[in-house]
Amino acid sequence: MKLSASDIYQSVEEIRAKSPLIHNITNYVVMNNTANALLAIGASPVMIHAEEEVEDMAAIASALVINIGTISPSWVRGMFKASAKAVSKGVPVVIDPVGAGATPYRTGTVRDLIRAGRPTIIRGNASEILALTDDRLKTKGVDSTAASDEALHAAQSIADASQCAVCVSGAVDYIVEGKRLVKVANGHPMMPKVTGLGCTASALCGAFAAVDQDPLTAAAKAMAVMGIAGEIAAEQSSGPGSLQMHFIDALYRLAKEDIERRLKVEG
Amino acid sequence: MKLSASDIYQSVEEIRAKSPLIHNITNYVVMNNTANALLAIGASPVMIHAEEEVEDMAAIASALVINIGTISPSWVRGMFKASAKAVSKGVPVVIDPVGAGATPYRTGTVRDLIRAGRPTIIRGNASEILALTDDRLKTKGVDSTAASDEALHAAQSIADASQCAVCVSGAVDYIVEGKRLVKVANGHPMMPKVTGLGCTASALCGAFAAVDQDPLTAAAKAMAVMGIAGEIAAEQSSGPGSLQMHFIDALYRLAKEDIERRLKVEG
Amino acid sequence: MKLSASDIYQSVEEIRAKSPLIHNITNYVVMNNTANALLAIGASPVMIHAEEEVEDMAAIASALVINIGTISPSWVRGMFKASAKAVSKGVPVVIDPVGAGATPYRTGTVRDLIRAGRPTIIRGNASEILALTDDRLKTKGVDSTAASDEALHAAQSIADASQCAVCVSGAVDYIVEGKRLVKVANGHPMMPKVTGLGCTASALCGAFAAVDQDPLTAAAKAMAVMGIAGEIAAEQSSGPGSLQMHFIDALYRLAKEDIERRLKVEG
Repeated sequence: MKLSASDIYQSVEEIRAKSPLIHNITNYVVMNNTANALLAIGASPVMIHAEEEVEDMAAIASALVINIGTISPSWVRGMFKASAKAVSKGVPVVIDPVGAGATPYRTGTVRDLIRAGRPTIIRGNASEILALTDDRLKTKGVDSTAASDEALHAAQSIADASQCAVCVSGAVDYIVEGKRLVKVANGHPMMPKVTGLGCTASALCGAFAAVDQDPLTAAAKAMAVMGIAGEIAAEQSSGPGSLQMHFIDALYRLAKEDIERRLKVEG
Repeated sequence: MKLSASDIYQSVEEIRAKSPLIHNITNYVVMNNTANALLAIGASPVMIHAEEEVEDMAAIASALVINIGTISPSWVRGMFKASAKAVSKGVPVVIDPVGAGATPYRTGTVRDLIRAGRPTIIRGNASEILALTDDRLKTKGVDSTAASDEALHAAQSIADASQCAVCVSGAVDYIVEGKRLVKVANGHPMMPKVTGLGCTASALCGAFAAVDQDPLTAAAKAMAVMGIAGEIAAEQSSGPGSLQMHFIDALYRLAKEDIERRLKVEG
Repeated sequence: MKLSASDIYQSVEEIRAKSPLIHNITNYVVMNNTANALLAIGASPVMIHAEEEVEDMAAIASALVINIGTISPSWVRGMFKASAKAVSKGVPVVIDPVGAGATPYRTGTVRDLIRAGRPTIIRGNASEILALTDDRLKTKGVDSTAASDEALHAAQSIADASQCAVCVSGAVDYIVEGKRLVKVANGHPMMPKVTGLGCTASALCGAFAAVDQDPLTAAAKAMAVMGIAGEIAAEQSSGPGSLQMHFIDALYRLAKEDIERRLKVEG
C-alpha cells in the first residue's frame, strides 16, 4: 500500500463536498479549536455530551470522536452510550486516550471504553499508547515522554486485540493495522507547543473515517493533512499563538499541490 | 421604522460608556470567544452556570444570555433559575436554541425554556427557528440546512406567541416582532466557517438589549454590528482562523464611519 | 529585596529546561489560553478536575492552580481534594478567586478553600482581594471596580492570616508577604480587554512557584513576565483579538533583553 497525494486530496474534496457530521465528546480545553479545525477542513462538527441526547446524535453522525481529556463520571456515561449506539449503527468511532497513564481513573476508563466499544481508530502519543497495555508505565500529564517508535509494538498488539487501526503520533506518526504499517513524517517541532493539536488530529481522523472506510488509510490521511497544514502554518508563524491561527487557515486553504509537494509518507 | 447608522453607533457608544454586565450561561465551545467579543464591544461578560449562584448573578446583570449548545441537566436547572430571576427583575433575556431539532432533548429543553421564561429576544439559524415549532423537522447538528427566509413564518408565530423579538440569522438576517420586520444583509460567507459566531451574535443581542429597550431594534443593531465587523475582518483574513481574530479587533475598533459606509438594513 | 531581570530570566530558563507539570483546575472560559500560555513559557500544563483523579494528579504535579471562575459543587469537591493532597506533598498551590464578591456562593467557596488549604500564592484583582475580607463589598461580575492600591491593606492581612503571598493585579501589581512588598508596573491598558489574562497570570504564578521556593518572588516574576509579554504583544496588535495571539508568541520568544529593557519593578 502506497498512500498518494491524490488519494489524500480526494478524501479532502469528499469531506468538503459532503460536509460529514462529526460528533465529538471531547475535552473543555480544545473544543473551540477542534470545532474550528473540522469546519476548516469542510466537516460539520457537533459537540454534545449529555447522556440524555448522545445516542440520538451518534446515531445520525458520520463519525464519533471520543476524547477523555477532561472526563468525569457523567461524561464517561455519555461516552459509553454514544459509543454503543455508533457501533450498532456502523458509525466509525475514534478514541483519543488523552493522558492515559497519568492517573488510574483515566487509564481504566479508556481501557474500558476500548473493550466495550469497537473503535475504528485509536490515536494517541507514544506514552498514551504504551499506557493502554503497560500497567507500570507512568506518564507525566498529557505530554509524551517516549518517542513514537517505542510504542510501535504496543500499537500493534492493541490493533490486533481491538481489530482497529492504531496511530501513534509524534515527530514521525506510525499508523498500524493488522500487518500493515504506514509512517507519516510531516509536521513541525513547534506543533506540540500548541495545546490540543493531538486532539485535533483525532477529530480529523473522524472526518477522514467518514469518507474512507479503511481505518488505516483514513488515519494516515488525517495525520498527513495535520502535518502538512502544520508545516505551512509554522512557516508563517513567530510562535505557537500564531501557529494555532495559521493552522486553521492552512486547513481551510489546503490545495492538492500542498500535499503533492510536501507529503512524506512511507509504507 | 428605519434603523440608521447613527442609532446603531449611539448604542455602541452607550455600551462602551456603561459597560453593561452580561450574564452568559452558554456552551463550552464558544465561552472564550463570546467573552472576548463582549469585552471588545465594551460590555462586561460573566460566565456563571451553577444553580447555587445563577440567581444572584442574573439579578444584578444588565442582560442574561442563555445558549443550549452543550447542555446537561444541571446546567438546564441553572438556566431555568436564572431566567426566572431575570424576568422577575426586568432583566432582558436572550435565548439561543443551538442545535434545536437535532435531538428531542434539546428541542424539548429550549421549548420549555421559552415557555417558562419570557425571553426578550430569540436568535437562531433557520433550522433552529423552524425546529421550535415544527416537530417533523430534523436538523443536521448545529449548521442550518435551510435559508433564513424559509423560517420567517415560524419566526413570526414564535414572536407572537412569546411576545418577543425573533431573529433568524443567515446570509440575510430577519428580525421580527409583532407586525414589524427588519432585514440585515451585512456579513461575509466565511463567517459560518468560524465556530460559534452565531453564539456571539446572541451575546451581542444581550449587550444591545442592555442599552436599547426595544427588542426588535436591539437585535437588529446586534446583527448589523456582527455583520459589519465580520466584513471588515474577512477583508483582512486568509481563512477562518484569522477571521476569528480579526473579528474581535474589528468589534473593538468599530467606528461610526464603518457602520455608515457598510450598513445594509431594510424594513 | 530587589528583583532583577537576571533573577527573572533565570527562572524562565529553569521552567524551559525542567518543563514543570502544572495541574490546573480552572474555568471553562480560559482553559485553552491558560494551557497555551503555560506551554509557551515552557511548562507542561494538565487540566484535570474530577474527584476521581485530582489527588493522583496533584500528587505528581510541580504546582497546583485553582481558579473558581466557573465553579459548581462537583468541581469544588475536586478543588478541596486536590488542594489537600498538594499541601500534604509540599506542592505549591495558587488560588485565583475569580469573581469573589459577585455572589455569596463564590465568595464563601474561595474563603473556605483558602482556610482549608495552605495556598502559596493568592492572585486576584483589587475587587476580588477586597471581597476575601470585606463582607459588604459587592463586585460587578469579574472585572475590578477598584484600583490595586485600594486592596493593599486587605492583601496584607490575608497574607498574614494565611502565611502566603498575595498578589493584587492591576495597572500596578502589588505583591505582599509578611512585611515585604514588591510593585510591578509592567503591562498594557489593552490587556483587561482580553478575557482571562488574569487567570493566565495565576497559572504563570504556578509555573514560577514550581522553580522558585519564595512565594513572593515567584509571584512577582510571573507578574513581570505577564506584563512584559503583554507590552510586546500590544505593540504588534490592532485590538484584543491580535493581542491574545501575540501574547502567546511573546511568552514563547521572551528573551533576557526584553526583561532587561522593560522591567519596572520596585520594592
